[in-house]
Formats: sequence, C-alpha cells, structure tokens
Amino acid sequence: MEFKDKGSYEVSDKAKDMKVLIVHARWNEKVVNALVNRAAERLVELGVAKTNIDIVSVAGSYELPFGVYAHNKNDGVTPFKETNTSRYDATIAIGTLIKGDTMHFEFIADAVAKELMSLQFKISRPIIFGLLTCFTEEQALERAGLIEGHRNLGEDWAEAAIEMAAKLK
Amino acid sequence: MEFKDKGSYEVSDKAKDMKVLIVHARWNEKVVNALVNRAAERLVELGVAKTNIDIVSVAGSYELPFGVYAHNKNDGVTPFKETNTSRYDATIAIGTLIKGDTMHFEFIADAVAKELMSLQFKISRPIIFGLLTCFTEEQALERAGLIEGHRNLGEDWAEAAIEMAAKLK
Amino acid sequence: MEFKDKGSYEVSDKAKDMKVLIVHARWNEKVVNALVNRAAERLVELGVAKTNIDIVSVAGSYELPFGVYAHNKNDGVTPFKETNTSRYDATIAIGTLIKGDTMHFEFIADAVAKELMSLQFKISRPIIFGLLTCFTEEQALERAGLIEGHRNLGEDWAEAAIEMAAKLK
Amino acid sequence: MEFKDKGSYEVSDKAKDMKVLIVHARWNEKVVNALVNRAAERLVELGVAKTNIDIVSVAGSYELPFGVYAHNKNDGVTPFKETNTSRYDATIAIGTLIKGDTMHFEFIADAVAKELMSLQFKISRPIIFGLLTCFTEEQALERAGLIEGHRNLGEDWAEAAIEMAAKLK
Amino acid sequence: MEFKDKGSYEVSDKAKDMKVLIVHARWNEKVVNALVNRAAERLVELGVAKTNIDIVSVAGSYELPFGVYAHNKNDGVTPFKETNTSRYDATIAIGTLIKGDTMHFEFIADAVAKELMSLQFKISRPIIFGLLTCFTEEQALERAGLIEGHRNLGEDWAEAAIEMAAKLK
Repeated sequence: MEFKDKGSYEVSDKAKDMKVLIVHARWNEKVVNALVNRAAERLVELGVAKTNIDIVSVAGSYELPFGVYAHNKNDGVTPFKETNTSRYDATIAIGTLIKGDTMHFEFIADAVAKELMSLQFKISRPIIFGLLTCFTEEQALERAGLIEGHRNLGEDWAEAAIEMAAKLK
Repeated sequence: MEFKDKGSYEVSDKAKDMKVLIVHARWNEKVVNALVNRAAERLVELGVAKTNIDIVSVAGSYELPFGVYAHNKNDGVTPFKETNTSRYDATIAIGTLIKGDTMHFEFIADAVAKELMSLQFKISRPIIFGLLTCFTEEQALERAGLIEGHRNLGEDWAEAAIEMAAKLK
Repeated sequence: MEFKDKGSYEVSDKAKDMKVLIVHARWNEKVVNALVNRAAERLVELGVAKTNIDIVSVAGSYELPFGVYAHNKNDGVTPFKETNTSRYDATIAIGTLIKGDTMHFEFIADAVAKELMSLQFKISRPIIFGLLTCFTEEQALERAGLIEGHRNLGEDWAEAAIEMAAKLK
Repeated sequence: MEFKDKGSYEVSDKAKDMKVLIVHARWNEKVVNALVNRAAERLVELGVAKTNIDIVSVAGSYELPFGVYAHNKNDGVTPFKETNTSRYDATIAIGTLIKGDTMHFEFIADAVAKELMSLQFKISRPIIFGLLTCFTEEQALERAGLIEGHRNLGEDWAEAAIEMAAKLK
Repeated sequence: MEFKDKGSYEVSDKAKDMKVLIVHARWNEKVVNALVNRAAERLVELGVAKTNIDIVSVAGSYELPFGVYAHNKNDGVTPFKETNTSRYDATIAIGTLIKGDTMHFEFIADAVAKELMSLQFKISRPIIFGLLTCFTEEQALERAGLIEGHRNLGEDWAEAAIEMAAKLK
C-alpha cells in the first residue's frame, strides 16, 4: 500500500512575507557568529526579505528563553496570554555551551532545552533549537562549519524555521 | 476473587470514523520511512479509512511537538485553548535519535519525550511516542523491522493510537 | 514536647463509598496482572465495593497518563478544566519497565513519573505511582510477589489510594 | 561601596499567628519521626503556637505533593485556583528515600523535588523541601541527628518555613 | 551578505530608572557575599540608583524561587496572575551548591534551575541564574573571584540583569 507523505517542502511562496527573529547568546563569539550569519543568509536564500530578519543578542544561553519571549512580545506591558500574537512567524535561538569543570553545563542546557520547547506553546509560534551542547571547543567549531569538511548547522535551523512557520500560514 | 479487566481491545467499530495524524522527522530516512509506512498500513488494517490518515513531516525530532500542535490546530490563528478541539482523534509522532559525540541526543530526547507527553493534555487528544532513542544505527534498524527477525514498532504505535483514541469516543 | 500526629489510618468508613480506577499497561503481563489483582483485592479488603473498582488497560507505560486522564473524564467532549470533577476518587497507575539496550527506559520512565505526578493537580484527585522501573526481570517478579519471600507492591498501592482519597472526603 | 542586606531574620513577631503544616511520609519511621519532631519543636521555639501546627502523614514520598495540596485546600470540593487561599502559611514536606536496587529512587526523588517546587506557586505558599535522598541508611540517620555529632535537619526546615512565610505577611 | 546585529549594549539610559532585586541563599556565606556585593556594585556602575537595589536572603538554594516570587509580589494577598506586574524590572538569584555525599545536590540544583527559568514567565520579568553548582569549595571560590586570577561572576549577572530588563522597557 502506498501513502502520500505531504512533507513540508514547498514553502518559498510563504517565506516572502515571513518575519523571523534570531536570538543568540554572545558567549563563544566566533562559533555563534558563524552560526547566526549562515542562518540569516539561508533565510534570505529561502525567500525571506532581509528587512524581515531581526537579529538580537543575550549574554548567555540561560537568557535565551526570556530573550525569545521579550522580543516576541508586541510591547513591554501587555502580558502575552492576553494577546496571543507574536511579532515573528518563527524564532531561531542560537547559543554554545561547552562542558566545563562544574555541573553548570548540564543544568543550564537541560533547562534551556525544556523551556525553549514549551515556550513555543506560550507564544504559539515555532522556536528552532540552535543550542550546541558540546564536550569540546573543537566540536563547536565543527558544527559551525569552521573546520574543513563540516557543515554549518545554521543552515539547517533556517530551513526548519521556514518550514515550521509555514505550517501555521 | 476475580476482577473483570475491561481491557481496550474491541475498537474496530470506532476506528472507521477516526482521523489519525502521523508526524515524522525526516532524519534517518530509511528507518523513519519504514516505521511510518508500517504504522499507516496497520491503521488501515485496523479499520481506519486511508483518506483519514494524514502523514506530514518536520526536519528533526526537536520539531515534533510543535509539528503535532500545528497540524492539530483547526487553523493558523485561533489559539488552541479557546477551541479545545483537535483535528485528529490521535497523533503518532515518529523520529529517530542516535547518540552522537555531544550531549545533543540526551537533551533533545528528554525535551521531546516530556513535551509530547504533556502536549496531550493541551490538545485533549492522545499522542503516541514513536521516538527511537538508540545508541547505534543497528538498534534503529532493528526497531524498524529492517533486520531479520525483528518487528517493526510502527505496528505497535498504530494499535496504541486506535486504542487510546477509542477511549474518548 | 509531644506532638500529635494525625496520621491517616482510619479510613474504612470512607472507603465504602469510594470509586477507584486501576489503569495498567499490558506489557509484561505476568508481572502486571499479579500487581493489578493484588491491588484490587486489597481495595476490597479495605472496604471498597467490588462494583466501584474499574480496571482498564493501555498498551505501554507511556500511555498511562493519558489513560488515567481519559478514563477520569466524565465524557469524551468536555475539557477537564471546565468541570474539575473526576469520575474516580483515586487512580492507581500500574506498569512495568525493564532496562533494555537503548535509552527508551530512562526517557519513558522519567516522563511518566513526572506526568502522573502533575496530572493529579489537573484532575484534582490522587494518582498512585505503580510503575516498576527495574534493571532485570527478576526485580520485577520480586516486586509483584512472584518470588518467594517478597511482598506484592499492589497491596501498598491500594492502601495509599484509599488513604489519599480519604484526605479529600 | 556598602549595601544593606535586609536579610530575613526578625520573624518572631509574625510567627505567633502562623499556621504551619508538616506532611511526612511514613517510610523509614525512625528517621522521619526524628525529623518531624525536631521540626515541630523548633517551630514552637520560634514562636508558633503548638495548636497552630498540624502534622499529617502519607505512605511514601511520591504521595508528598498531593498530600501537601489536599491538606492545604479549604475543603475537598473547590478547586484551588478559584480560591487561591491556603489553610497554612507554610508547609514542610518530610520524607526519606534511600537508593535501592532499581531506578525507583531517582525517578521518584526527581518528580517529588520538581513538584514540591512548582506546587508552591499553585498554592501561593512556601513549601520547605525536607526530602532526604541518600545512598545509605547511615546518611539518613546522620541527617536526622541520630548519629553522634550530627545535626537534625528538621531544625533548619522549621526555620526556613517561618522565614519564607514571613515574606508574605 | 552582512546583517546588522542589534545587540543589546546601550542600556545606560534605561538603567537609571530600573529597580533590581537580588535574592541570595545564605549558605556558604563567604562565597555568596562576594558574589552579591560585586553584583550590586556593578549594577550601580551601570547606572542603577543604589536606592533602587534591594538585597534579601533565603536560607538555602531550594528557597530561591519562592523568594524571588514573594519579593516580586506587590503584596502578600493578590495572586500574581491577576496583576501581572512585578515590583522589580529584573531579579538576580544567587546561591552556591557544592556536591556532597548524597544526591541532594543534583535534585535541588535541577529543580531550582528549571523553576527560576519558568518563573520568569509567571512574573513577566527576567531572572538571572546566579547559582553555582560546583564539585568543590575551590571551584566556588574561583567563581566568586576569591582566588587570584579569577573573575567574580556577580559582575556578569548584573550586566545580564540590566540587559534583559532593558528589553522590556
């Protein structure tokens, strides 16, 4: 028996009206900048207007969820739940965590992964998980495409953002 | 003393009117496709009309919960909590995660397992957990029935979807 | 100084009007059946009318929380939050998980333990945690009283169900 | 530069009108009783009226959160969210978990720690975390002050309860 | 292609009207005091009026989330959700946990990290995560700048507090 998989591939028509937010932590600047730039470039390649892409930053990865929330609000006063409208069709949250000497890495990574996940349902918009959780600096450089022969994951995140946003259009 | 266990086995009459959604990640295409196809086939064997089965995809497993949410919404505007009606009687969420060099696997698998679980109560409909969380590619192939002597778990998920949906009918 | 501990022991008068639900996964049938039967027997010994005990099943342990939710609803339409009444005074959720080759065990057990916990506050009724999370089959058999010299934990769960339900009576 | 830390130390005036609930699991009776008694004694030393301290029990630690919830409700019918008033100014939840042969310990301890934490915001009152999560019986005896040279932690919990309750007075 | 990153750096104008709360646990006084003082100093350096900084304490780290909540409330009666206004523009939660002989460290650290994260969305204001989760006392001293050649993290937390609060102004 054959089933038709509707997939989610033809999104270019919808992309041209989308507004996308990239929120990134600033820690490990080299890695994060490479990821952010490739994500933004890829959004444009997929049809998003350059003027419809906002890039903002927070200090560290723990700040990512509240950063996503604050920048998606229409203003600084009205609580989200009353409006249920977000300023952006999708958000990409980007950061880098590298295992250090304490348990900081585990507790922060887990809290951020869970909150970005559930925050999607509070703002009714998709959030793409662009947090690297690496044991070494080299693993982070690889995933940002900064080591020969490795792809920049920012590209995947941009594609996922457009695809997920298109599901609500 | 003997107690009667009502069980949940006689569901065929209810199945013919059910609408079932399969949302799958595309990563590890061979494994995922085998799981999705067997799940869909089994739904039909259990009495679901082929036209009442929708199959859609997301990029990776982290996108599964929002994918389930978006496709269950009636439209792209009304927030869920106001309508409390889902377009489908049950959803099967299918993906494959294989342990890599970083902690990506653990954080994503745990966030997805928890959100799919609690999302059921936001959409008031059952979501079947079809996420493989394997250490090796071989373990994934086994669970998709692609290695001799192993069953395809998609079959179990289809049965569970019908059974859980029947509880609300 | 002496403090009076009110404890929670004299519940027999209240038990005779209680309705109790047992939801069990079917996996590992021998172990689960022993647990379910002993729990049901003990409920009767404590004064619950046999006709006020409903026993229903779901396929696997991940389905337990939605099973508890669905069977506690008054009907299949009204969302819970609007009625805030449950059909049962207490629910016992019973299942067996045994560590396998993948991480399936850990992710599922943790998601189920957390959701059964928080689900209590959504349905405003106690849910007793009857999920075995074992490394070996033998450990499961022991806890179901199927190995000489070991108690069947179903007994404890029945007692806890009555005690917790009595707190709201 | 010097900053004034307001601290939270002068609470004795407020303590005399406070009502405090101690909910304890009964498992490991010797350890738990020592903890409960010292907590209650310390509450009285801090100015709480003996008649304003209620001590109730549940079977095991997994039952602690629902026990806290049920005993804080004004009655058994009105859902909490509509009244938002709790019968007690603070609650101390006391239990003992000791690592056994299965994963029961980890899943239960984590679920209880998280739920007691978030339950505070559902009942709008502080809950003090008095759950011992030990690898050995000896560690539990130490923390209950039952081994020479060790303090009984019940004392700290009583102090924390008064301090946290005072923040809302 | 070049994208303009709006960053979040020019906040000095907004800082002069901000009210900031520091809630700290008292355990490990030497470490905590160094962190709190440096955070408060840095807030003043960034333009916050000294009279707009409140410093309060709780006993242990598990009490941090409820402490943040209680001190952000306008009064002790009105539930938060009805007002949705917080007394402070941002809160810094500071504590020190050091791995001991039991599992206390893991369960508490994880519960606190998750609750401080989600509490931000209940009070609609940012909470900076100033909880050290160390294996040794020395690691804690380092992070408080008390060992030669190490920076005091309180500084970073103050900067993050101002930056996150500015996003809502």
